[in-house]
Amino acid sequence: MRSPFFGEFMGTLVLILLGNGVVAGVLLKRSKAENSGWMVIATGWAFAVLCGIFTAVLCGSQDAHLNPAITLAMAVQSGDFSKVAVFIPAQMLGAFVGAILVWLHYLPHWKATEDPQAKRAIFCTAPAIRSLPANFFSEVVGTAVLVFVVGAMSSKLVLSTGIAGGLSPYLIGCLVWSIGLSLGGTTGYAINPARDLGPRIAHATLPIAGKGNSDWGYALIPVFGPCTGAVLAALLLRALGA
Amino acid sequence: MRSPFFGEFMGTLVLILLGNGVVAGVLLKRSKAENSGWMVIATGWAFAVLCGIFTAVLCGSQDAHLNPAITLAMAVQSGDFSKVAVFIPAQMLGAFVGAILVWLHYLPHWKATEDPQAKRAIFCTAPAIRSLPANFFSEVVGTAVLVFVVGAMSSKLVLSTGIAGGLSPYLIGCLVWSIGLSLGGTTGYAINPARDLGPRIAHATLPIAGKGNSDWGYALIPVFGPCTGAVLAALLLRALGA
Amino acid sequence: MRSPFFGEFMGTLVLILLGNGVVAGVLLKRSKAENSGWMVIATGWAFAVLCGIFTAVLCGSQDAHLNPAITLAMAVQSGDFSKVAVFIPAQMLGAFVGAILVWLHYLPHWKATEDPQAKRAIFCTAPAIRSLPANFFSEVVGTAVLVFVVGAMSSKLVLSTGIAGGLSPYLIGCLVWSIGLSLGGTTGYAINPARDLGPRIAHATLPIAGKGNSDWGYALIPVFGPCTGAVLAALLLRALGA
Amino acid sequence: MRSPFFGEFMGTLVLILLGNGVVAGVLLKRSKAENSGWMVIATGWAFAVLCGIFTAVLCGSQDAHLNPAITLAMAVQSGDFSKVAVFIPAQMLGAFVGAILVWLHYLPHWKATEDPQAKRAIFCTAPAIRSLPANFFSEVVGTAVLVFVVGAMSSKLVLSTGIAGGLSPYLIGCLVWSIGLSLGGTTGYAINPARDLGPRIAHATLPIAGKGNSDWGYALIPVFGPCTGAVLAALLLRALGA
Repeated sequence: MRSPFFGEFMGTLVLILLGNGVVAGVLLKRSKAENSGWMVIATGWAFAVLCGIFTAVLCGSQDAHLNPAITLAMAVQSGDFSKVAVFIPAQMLGAFVGAILVWLHYLPHWKATEDPQAKRAIFCTAPAIRSLPANFFSEVVGTAVLVFVVGAMSSKLVLSTGIAGGLSPYLIGCLVWSIGLSLGGTTGYAINPARDLGPRIAHATLPIAGKGNSDWGYALIPVFGPCTGAVLAALLLRALGA
Repeated sequence: MRSPFFGEFMGTLVLILLGNGVVAGVLLKRSKAENSGWMVIATGWAFAVLCGIFTAVLCGSQDAHLNPAITLAMAVQSGDFSKVAVFIPAQMLGAFVGAILVWLHYLPHWKATEDPQAKRAIFCTAPAIRSLPANFFSEVVGTAVLVFVVGAMSSKLVLSTGIAGGLSPYLIGCLVWSIGLSLGGTTGYAINPARDLGPRIAHATLPIAGKGNSDWGYALIPVFGPCTGAVLAALLLRALGA
Repeated sequence: MRSPFFGEFMGTLVLILLGNGVVAGVLLKRSKAENSGWMVIATGWAFAVLCGIFTAVLCGSQDAHLNPAITLAMAVQSGDFSKVAVFIPAQMLGAFVGAILVWLHYLPHWKATEDPQAKRAIFCTAPAIRSLPANFFSEVVGTAVLVFVVGAMSSKLVLSTGIAGGLSPYLIGCLVWSIGLSLGGTTGYAINPARDLGPRIAHATLPIAGKGNSDWGYALIPVFGPCTGAVLAALLLRALGA
Repeated sequence: MRSPFFGEFMGTLVLILLGNGVVAGVLLKRSKAENSGWMVIATGWAFAVLCGIFTAVLCGSQDAHLNPAITLAMAVQSGDFSKVAVFIPAQMLGAFVGAILVWLHYLPHWKATEDPQAKRAIFCTAPAIRSLPANFFSEVVGTAVLVFVVGAMSSKLVLSTGIAGGLSPYLIGCLVWSIGLSLGGTTGYAINPARDLGPRIAHATLPIAGKGNSDWGYALIPVFGPCTGAVLAALLLRALGA
């Protein structure tokens, strides 16, 4: 039953269940976590990554990418593209199912919440100020930091110094915490095409009480921005021999 | 003096003293932590788990379950039910005594607090929106994530990769932090029958100033929801050979 | 230059500089951290402990108690009282000097702050609801948890299982974080006679702009409460062979 | 491509991108993190340090100073000044480029924000109460704590006890978290000449929408204060044989 496909599927499912879940907790009316703020959202996503990584490894993906941009970056860095066709569909499917679980988990709260934009924000990202070139650039920067520092935390050049102490899933969680706090204010830090597109498709298809449109006009930015940032970081990692 | 019974008793006592204690600090009037919000509650429960685990191990339970749902899950996963009859009474008793200590620790604050629902919320959980099937489902999801990721963090399949670095109590604390932030908004994440039922019995029996009823109509949900989620996760762990 | 006395002195100095410092940051007018809440205070004290421990070890005290109640508990547990007469004066002196540094660090802010009770709260604790027996009991409970879980985190019985991973200073910081969040709402968790008495003497002697009295009527509670809780926990640790 | 110069440049760039980035997220209008408070700022800087250290090590600087005051302190402690002339220009340049990236990352938000002081605060520090001797003293204290505890966390005298567990980058992040929470309320804790001067030069040169002056009258304090505190701490570390 363990396989790379099942590992990426389950890991991304847990990532989205806990990550989109924290946004639901903060935005939905009558939630006990209502209005608890940006710190809660960034912390929730950090631990979602931590839990997703352990889930993925147990279920058969020792890579634990959970993110097509990281899969793409690792392929560019190593020159081996064989995982792309297996990992990315698994991540997309996991994100889609994770978003359905968030919808079911918070089921009585959708009717209690009027604002259709808040409801959509639980599924997919939207920019604070809509400006597609600037929003694209933000996603490039956030994902480049993600991929480059994940590369540093996983590189033999760094691990040989002993400074990661076997706790890389926790440190990668802290990295995502950091990106959320520091760079998330502009576009809500998708930094992961599956994290945005999978739940957006779920938003479009689920019978969510009082939902609005799925903002397809923005949907390409959190796909191509992260991929661009990831490739740039991968080229730098490759040049460094990381 | 060290024994599995004493370990589960003391560990669950510390879990509830610190876990219910943080809810008391946030909800009771004139507490220095009054109204400090959901982040404080979720963080407090995370560290309560961390401290409870160390206490349990020292006092003789290297398993450190602190939760009948985890004891049940481990029995289902392993096929060995011998610990159930020892651990669960110890956990229930520890939760009951822990709740009494919270009452005594905050003794002058009960009279200063008018709202009987806030006082009950310090002992046991209540749903944000009462809908028994949805509340049951929430407890199933939260506990399934708890048991499955604890299983991942403890599995030889994962530990052999070196990514847990000997810090599993801290990582399990982060997992509970995550569940609280991301999935706790609906029912207050009992995810542990002893955590809910033991303190509910304490609420019913203690002479708390100005208390209301103990909401027995809801009491079965945080018992059977967690048990159901735990068994589902255990079956998946078993299928994976974790 | 390294010695147990210098280690306990410097470690407690750093503990109080950072611990009382965070209270100053939250309570003093025109501070950038003004009104940032209980989470900031509890987090600040947690990391103050972490930094104090590393300082103490570097300066010559591998025990890194930083707290007369812990020194007393370790003496009761081991039956060896030889460290008491060296460690406790060093801790008291370190706390006194640390409080002076907090006063100097925030020097322009004392005049900007009117409330004399807020100014005293930066030095020493005061109960949320004054009731000496209840306040005493709160300090007993908080310190018993501190000493017992520190004992668990340091016990060979626990370390042999590998679950502390060499990170005990960080875990002890998390324990203090936990006690602050969960049990600090009543008396402000002195849980350390030096932490309260040393800065209270500094408050009484320093020429602080617009200060009020030093509340000597409460001063014995955060000395004898912590000592009582520490001895009770030490007796239990001893009975467990920890 | 890996070299000490490139390592310090890239590490400081990431430090400032994430550190100044979190201030931008909190202060700029219409940011999703707007007004999320001091906890977010202190946490953001802590993880910025963590990510900067890993980046520096990967890019060729195993020292990972990211701060001229630390470079100066290590030179004073060891008597070897050979790194100063390489590291400090790299750190200054990295901080300058990091600040430019923050400006670009949040590009649409500068016009949306009226207050020129808030915009400058995203680049460089300013005192809460302007009093140059007190502000200088604050920077001395904050940096002395930084350098001394970093020295403790890195000292062979401490590492030989096993208490750092290979996680020094995370622990140093916690130290910066601590200094921010506890000592940052007065001057905004520059504690790093490059962190303040590099972005101040960026503020002076970039075409930021509606910017005010760059407050050059304060610019020397966050340079000479940190250097003074660093040298004092280095002399103590040297006396201890750390």
